[in-house]
Amino acid sequence: MKLTILGCYSATPRINTNPTSQVLEIRNHLFLIDCGEGTQVQLRKNKIKFNRIKHIFISHLHGDHYFGLVGLISTFRLLTREADLHIYGPKGLKEVITLQMKLADSWTNYKLIFHELNSKESELIYEDDKVEVHTIPLDHRVYTNGFLFKEKPHERRLNLGAAQDANIHVSYFNKLKQGFDVKNEDGLLIKNDTVTLPGPPALSYAFCSDTAYNEAIIPIIKEVEVLYHESTFLEKLAHLGQKTKHSTAKEAASIAKQAEAKTLILGHFSTRYDDVEEFRTEAKEIFNNVELAKEGKVFEF
Amino acid sequence: MKLTILGCYSATPRINTNPTSQVLEIRNHLFLIDCGEGTQVQLRKNKIKFNRIKHIFISHLHGDHYFGLVGLISTFRLLTREADLHIYGPKGLKEVITLQMKLADSWTNYKLIFHELNSKESELIYEDDKVEVHTIPLDHRVYTNGFLFKEKPHERRLNLGAAQDANIHVSYFNKLKQGFDVKNEDGLLIKNDTVTLPGPPALSYAFCSDTAYNEAIIPIIKEVEVLYHESTFLEKLAHLGQKTKHSTAKEAASIAKQAEAKTLILGHFSTRYDDVEEFRTEAKEIFNNVELAKEGKVFEF
Repeated sequence: MKLTILGCYSATPRINTNPTSQVLEIRNHLFLIDCGEGTQVQLRKNKIKFNRIKHIFISHLHGDHYFGLVGLISTFRLLTREADLHIYGPKGLKEVITLQMKLADSWTNYKLIFHELNSKESELIYEDDKVEVHTIPLDHRVYTNGFLFKEKPHERRLNLGAAQDANIHVSYFNKLKQGFDVKNEDGLLIKNDTVTLPGPPALSYAFCSDTAYNEAIIPIIKEVEVLYHESTFLEKLAHLGQKTKHSTAKEAASIAKQAEAKTLILGHFSTRYDDVEEFRTEAKEIFNNVELAKEGKVFEF
Repeated sequence: MKLTILGCYSATPRINTNPTSQVLEIRNHLFLIDCGEGTQVQLRKNKIKFNRIKHIFISHLHGDHYFGLVGLISTFRLLTREADLHIYGPKGLKEVITLQMKLADSWTNYKLIFHELNSKESELIYEDDKVEVHTIPLDHRVYTNGFLFKEKPHERRLNLGAAQDANIHVSYFNKLKQGFDVKNEDGLLIKNDTVTLPGPPALSYAFCSDTAYNEAIIPIIKEVEVLYHESTFLEKLAHLGQKTKHSTAKEAASIAKQAEAKTLILGHFSTRYDDVEEFRTEAKEIFNNVELAKEGKVFEF
């Protein structure tokens, strides 16, 4: 998995910071998560090919998470995109995008497929042979979901020497990788785990922004590899977090700890903070493996 | 008058170019004209104080002319703006902005006043003691207006020596500046033009984007000081201009010539052109005083 941060500040775009948007690459899929104003320029800056984006996930309908979406859709149209575009987001998103296309008398020549969300329970919203995406219901001022991206288990790795020694015909090797026992040339049943090794572990990534401190998400993101959790405020302004339903760095760390995440990435910093290193310091009091989101930063895991 | 170009390219924002937006300052008023995606960042880059913007004019509802508006409105709210904001633009604009505020459950704490336009005739849409704004109906794929900004006549300048020689009491000087004849200390009527001089000429600025070549606008912008006219294409691609209802540099120049404008500023260049100097060359074949819009460029006149 490869995560590229396009924007990781709350509120409004500024000369040097951008509102929320990030790109997650898993097994050659590219998922765009949130799309604040200016995202299309951030995509260009980070050299991400527009036509690789086929699925966009919008957490909620506050402007700093989706005001760039209509422009991106419109740019895809001008670039004569043909591939379908799937958009997952709260109910209402289709209406507002469609209204803007109607007013411009500019309809996309590609298929725009909205998957509108309104469930308050976690649900599976995307699945193919390699990846699943589940919603993570969050606690914010408007209806909001985080998203959990889970790789499906990888194939087992063939122990070539052992398979040859066991006299298994090459035509069975794919079956072996898929975990099946097979018969060898002598008609004997060979146990799969004697000739294969476990594949690489299936990774997972949870995106949780925006939300108040919310322990209800812990079972959903349990043992996640990487947790991106918003931390709009430092401890000193925790009262603002409570008022606006945002989290502090410590609250994010507490969620990471309880969920037994491997790594925590903090983001969605309030634009009042010029230096965000203090977010790491506060979070580390509770959870050790803390990273800070930064525009243009790429996390590979 | 002072015109600051925030964006002057057609289509979509890119790393180094922005869609249409500009700020016109007239006698201490600040008017924002069009508001493509990224305009709020361009305002910051050009150090234009947000709270000086009280009137925003939107030509039409294609994204490259207004996708930045909702974000700007939202930023004003976050900055706890209190002053009224007047928005002039095509019918439909209020609906789309209101829908986005409703979905975000984020209403402005300041007054947002929409002046929706649907007339196909030029009309007076703004007036105070110093400035008038008239629409310029344009010929584009959707309902579109340009805007004509006209200073009201300046006061006459007092010829102090002549007024004193004529024995006029100082309390009559304001009357004189306003153009009235007044009585002097001896009760004699003094003709205004014997003790005053004409004030500076009243200037005007016409913004015309987007539009096909359209001679119908000439009477409206007759003798305008500065004409900003779109020129999306060079002559070679005139057929694209006809198809998409845009103008070439030569067509813009022809309008400027017939309108007897003093200066023509070309803008709304297609993003296919890396070097736009050729627009000036082509326009100059027809009209001499041609300027090229450029982001961050300030025209004072």
